[in-house]
Amino acid sequence: MRASYAIGLDVGGTRIAAGLVERKGRIVKEMRTSTPKGGPFGVVDAIIDAIGEVATGVHASEIAGIGIGLPAQIDFGRQTVEFCTNLPLGGVDMRGLVMSRTKHSVAIDNDGHTAALGESRFGAAKGARDFLMVTVGTGVGGGVFIAGELYRGHRGLGGEIGHMVVDLDGPDCPCGGKGHLEAFVARPAIIREGRAAAETYRGSGILRRAGDDPGLITAELVIEAANAGDEAAAEIMGRVGHVLGEALVGLVNLLNPQLVVIGGGIGETCPLIIERATQAISSEALAGRRDVHVVPAELGNDAGVVGAAALAFDEHDSREGLHR
Amino acid sequence: MRASYAIGLDVGGTRIAAGLVERKGRIVKEMRTSTPKGGPFGVVDAIIDAIGEVATGVHASEIAGIGIGLPAQIDFGRQTVEFCTNLPLGGVDMRGLVMSRTKHSVAIDNDGHTAALGESRFGAAKGARDFLMVTVGTGVGGGVFIAGELYRGHRGLGGEIGHMVVDLDGPDCPCGGKGHLEAFVARPAIIREGRAAAETYRGSGILRRAGDDPGLITAELVIEAANAGDEAAAEIMGRVGHVLGEALVGLVNLLNPQLVVIGGGIGETCPLIIERATQAISSEALAGRRDVHVVPAELGNDAGVVGAAALAFDEHDSREGLHR
Repeated sequence: MRASYAIGLDVGGTRIAAGLVERKGRIVKEMRTSTPKGGPFGVVDAIIDAIGEVATGVHASEIAGIGIGLPAQIDFGRQTVEFCTNLPLGGVDMRGLVMSRTKHSVAIDNDGHTAALGESRFGAAKGARDFLMVTVGTGVGGGVFIAGELYRGHRGLGGEIGHMVVDLDGPDCPCGGKGHLEAFVARPAIIREGRAAAETYRGSGILRRAGDDPGLITAELVIEAANAGDEAAAEIMGRVGHVLGEALVGLVNLLNPQLVVIGGGIGETCPLIIERATQAISSEALAGRRDVHVVPAELGNDAGVVGAAALAFDEHDSREGLHR
Repeated sequence: MRASYAIGLDVGGTRIAAGLVERKGRIVKEMRTSTPKGGPFGVVDAIIDAIGEVATGVHASEIAGIGIGLPAQIDFGRQTVEFCTNLPLGGVDMRGLVMSRTKHSVAIDNDGHTAALGESRFGAAKGARDFLMVTVGTGVGGGVFIAGELYRGHRGLGGEIGHMVVDLDGPDCPCGGKGHLEAFVARPAIIREGRAAAETYRGSGILRRAGDDPGLITAELVIEAANAGDEAAAEIMGRVGHVLGEALVGLVNLLNPQLVVIGGGIGETCPLIIERATQAISSEALAGRRDVHVVPAELGNDAGVVGAAALAFDEHDSREGLHR
C-alpha cells in the first residue's frame, strides 16, 4: 500500500528539524529543536521526541517510514555512521535505535545527500538527470546525481565535494587534508577572512556590523556586508565564489553535468557566490560543457527535511515493490 | 547475429594503431602506422587503409563494426568531434566519413574512454563496477565507471580527469586553465622539470642519459633515470605521483570507487607514481574510503585498440538487441 506520509529529519550540530511530509513534498507539520549537547543518547532521545511530535494524530500505517540526514560519513549500504565531526554519533547504530523505539523503518544518509535528494525531487533540480548539488555552510557537502539517481559509490560514501584539493599548499582542512575546497569556502574560512579584513580600514564595514568586536564577526555578517555592497566583504565572498567555481570547472570537465545547484546556509544567501562560480565555469570549462546551468537551491531550510522524507518514501516503495 | 570480430583503432597524435579483435579481447591481427601530418583527410585516409589491412580476408558480415578512439573531446551522443588539440579533427564528421567508405557501422569516443573500456572488459578492472581510470601520457585522460558502465555525463563529454584544478596559482595548462592536474603530471611537465634539474649537479644523471644535451631530455629518460634510482629523477617522478595522488584523494572522496587504474605511457612505466599515489590516498582519503585499490593498467599499448573494439561490439549488440 502506498503510505501517504514520511517523516524527514535534518539533524545538525546545532539544531534538529523534523517534518511530516506528503508524497509531493509538502510539509504538513514541522518542528525544530536544539541539538542536545553531551553523549549520543541525548541526540537519539531528541530525535525520538521530534518524531513523536510530528507523527501525533497520524495512524502508523499511513507513515511510509523515517528518513534521517546526519552531518556524518554514512556507509549507506550497511546503514552505519562511519565518522561524524560535530556530533558524537560515530559508531552509533542510529538506524537500529530509532527503529526499535518507533517501530517504523528508518533510513539514514549524509545530510548533503538528503539535501540533494530534496532539490532533485521537489526543488531546483526537478527533472534533471545529471547534476551536482553543493551545499556550502559550516562545511561543504553535496551529492552527485547520475541518470536521475543519487550516486553513492562503492560503499555508499560518495558525494564529498568539499574534500577535493584545490590548492596543494593551501590552508588546513578540518578533515586533516590541506587546501581542500572546504578550507576555502566554508563558514570558518569566511570568518577568518572577515576578521583579517576587520583589522584594516577597508574592513570597517564588516567590523561595524559586529558592533566593533572582531570576535563577533560571523560568516553571516560578512555576507550581509557583501550583499550591501561593502567592498572588502564583496572581495571575500567573490573569492569564495571564484574558488568554488574553479573546483566546479574540474567537476564539470569530469562529469559533464547539465546543472549545478548551490545550497547550504552560505551558498543560498549570497548571490555573488553563484555569479562568480558561473563566471569561472563559463569561461574555463572545456569545450561543449559550458552550457551547464548554475542555480541556487530552492528549498532553503526545508531541503534536508523533505529530502530525508523522500529517502524514506524511496526505501518504502522499493521494499513494497512500488515504482515512483 | 553475433559477429565474431570488431575493428578497434587507437588514433594518436603520432601514430595510429588498428586491430582485428575477437569478442574475448584477443587481437588477431594488428598494424601500426604514423599519423599523417597536414589536414584531416590524410588522417581519414590512413584510418581507412589501416581498417582495410586488418580486415583483409574476413567477410564483412563477420565484423560487428568499427570503434575509433580519438585524442579529442567527443560529444558521444551526437558522435561529433567537439575539440581536438593535437590533430586537425575538430568539426570533422569522422564517423560519417569512415562509415561511408567502409560500409561498416562506426562509433567514435575519446581515447581515455576507450582505454578505460579496454581495462574494464579485458584488463586490470575486469569485474569492477565502480572505478576510475587515469591515463597519464602527453595529456591526462581517463574514464569514470559507474555501476559497470562508462559514465559519459549529460552530453557524453565526461571523463576529463586531467582538467581539475589542484593548485589555484599553478602552472598554465594547455586547455587555457591554470594549475590543472595535467599541468603537473603529463609529459611536458616532466620534461620541464627534467631540464630544470639538468641545470644543476643533482640532475646530472638525467643529463647524461640525454647525451649531455638538455634539449634531448624526454619524459621517458627521466622515468628511466628514476627507475634506476637517480635521486633527482626520483624526486620529480615522486612529486608527479604525489600530485596525482592528491587529485585522486578528492575523487575517492567524491566518488568512493573500489579501484583506480593508472595507465598511459607515463603512468604504466613508472612504479613510483603508483606507489606515491597510493600513499596519498591511504593516508588522506576520508574514513571508509581508503580501501580503494590503486593498480597499474594491464593492457599497455593494446588498451586503446581492444577498448575501441569493445565499443564497436557494444554498439553492435545494443543495435541487435543482444546482451553482453
